[in-house]
Amino acid sequence: MTTQIVTAAILAIGDELLSGRTKDKNIGHLADVLLLSGIDLKEVRIVADEEEAIVEALNALRARYTYVFTSGGIGPTHDDITADAVSKAFGLPCEHDAEAMRLLADMYARRGMEFTEARQRMARMPRGARHIANPVSTAPGFVVENVYVMAGVPQVFQAMVDNILPELAGGAKMLTRSLPCPYGEGDIGTLLGAIQKAHPATSIGSYPKYDGQRFSTELVVRARDPEALDAAAHAIAAMIRDLDTARASGHPGPEA
Amino acid sequence: MTTQIVTAAILAIGDELLSGRTKDKNIGHLADVLLLSGIDLKEVRIVADEEEAIVEALNALRARYTYVFTSGGIGPTHDDITADAVSKAFGLPCEHDAEAMRLLADMYARRGMEFTEARQRMARMPRGARHIANPVSTAPGFVVENVYVMAGVPQVFQAMVDNILPELAGGAKMLTRSLPCPYGEGDIGTLLGAIQKAHPATSIGSYPKYDGQRFSTELVVRARDPEALDAAAHAIAAMIRDLDTARASGHPGPEA
Repeated sequence: MTTQIVTAAILAIGDELLSGRTKDKNIGHLADVLLLSGIDLKEVRIVADEEEAIVEALNALRARYTYVFTSGGIGPTHDDITADAVSKAFGLPCEHDAEAMRLLADMYARRGMEFTEARQRMARMPRGARHIANPVSTAPGFVVENVYVMAGVPQVFQAMVDNILPELAGGAKMLTRSLPCPYGEGDIGTLLGAIQKAHPATSIGSYPKYDGQRFSTELVVRARDPEALDAAAHAIAAMIRDLDTARASGHPGPEA
Repeated sequence: MTTQIVTAAILAIGDELLSGRTKDKNIGHLADVLLLSGIDLKEVRIVADEEEAIVEALNALRARYTYVFTSGGIGPTHDDITADAVSKAFGLPCEHDAEAMRLLADMYARRGMEFTEARQRMARMPRGARHIANPVSTAPGFVVENVYVMAGVPQVFQAMVDNILPELAGGAKMLTRSLPCPYGEGDIGTLLGAIQKAHPATSIGSYPKYDGQRFSTELVVRARDPEALDAAAHAIAAMIRDLDTARASGHPGPEA
């Protein structure tokens, strides 16, 4: 088992994500996939279709994390400027890629459709970029160094993610265990803080839930070492049992 | 009508948003609300429960936008470090706020519950911060300069948003019009680019949809001036009619 820590950021690009018009579906999907791959998603940014904003975010993220995954802005319309912005961030010319032109020309020819100037925009990418195959609609995504540029349409994004997964270096898989807890954070905060301190090789998250009347929590232990995970999970289970006992004996503390 | 441009960013804080465990509900809600208020949401970031990450993102965003709205990390557990991080970003001491202590002590006394050390954490905020009332569970959010710090639990977040809305300076309302378009981006990209160029006071977005077989688009015109909006929307409608005519006459272009 490798103990290498592999990190990632997602940069979702598109005015529609910021206007509330489109609820993003790609971030949650990729977050799930990265978790399973043992890659730590550390940051997400959503920016508008503005070159300066994309370039700045991309340069900040690609310097900081092992991988950066982008979604959106690689279609054929005037507001699709991700290829230009990525090229600018890397100081590379943005060109019509010969192989992408061939793939797209063939596809449109087979379908008896015109390979318009707009469609040719989808073949543009930074010089020397590697392709990410697009089995849904042909127009490829691309990779420059540690930056993976993918489409915004969820079906296409997910297909591209499937295609890049095998080449990503997975980190030591992060193990997680969820413990539903009937007590609110106010009841368990101090105890849980002590458990976290006693189990430094784990990360214990407390996620409050509210059903309209009462708070409960879901407690999630994360660790790379299964023994550390077990030890912390046992300590939490013991804490919940102790609170149950206190509640049964009429102690006023727990809200239940 | 004011023509002031008012901008905003959202900073969502929490490991659970990055692990794929919790799908964020606050960003989409606030994006909708801001759009209606005439405030331009320009950037969203999601960061982990790590002080350095929160401080850095907060300082970048608060310098750049009119308002910054945060969600998450103000509960009573050890991983709730947003109050500390916001204090650090502003160089202020993080203290138990006297009024928040009173509100919480009263609430727990009324409910016959102990005001534990963990619950007292929820009264901590940067010295001098203004409260954001929390009608759901009492523990207040807070405001420092242009930064609005709110809870992560969606019901509480939304109640806090309702409470701050009246004090936000709305910008000139951004008007939008959506035009469903049965043609894919490849068919309309060049024409639409020309329309965008001819209508510089508008922002025309093209959002591809894919039903598993074909692409269509939703075209969205945004403008602060209603006449500019009308003119661009008419040009787009004319474009769609022309494509319909071409299709009916057997022109091979449009994919339909």
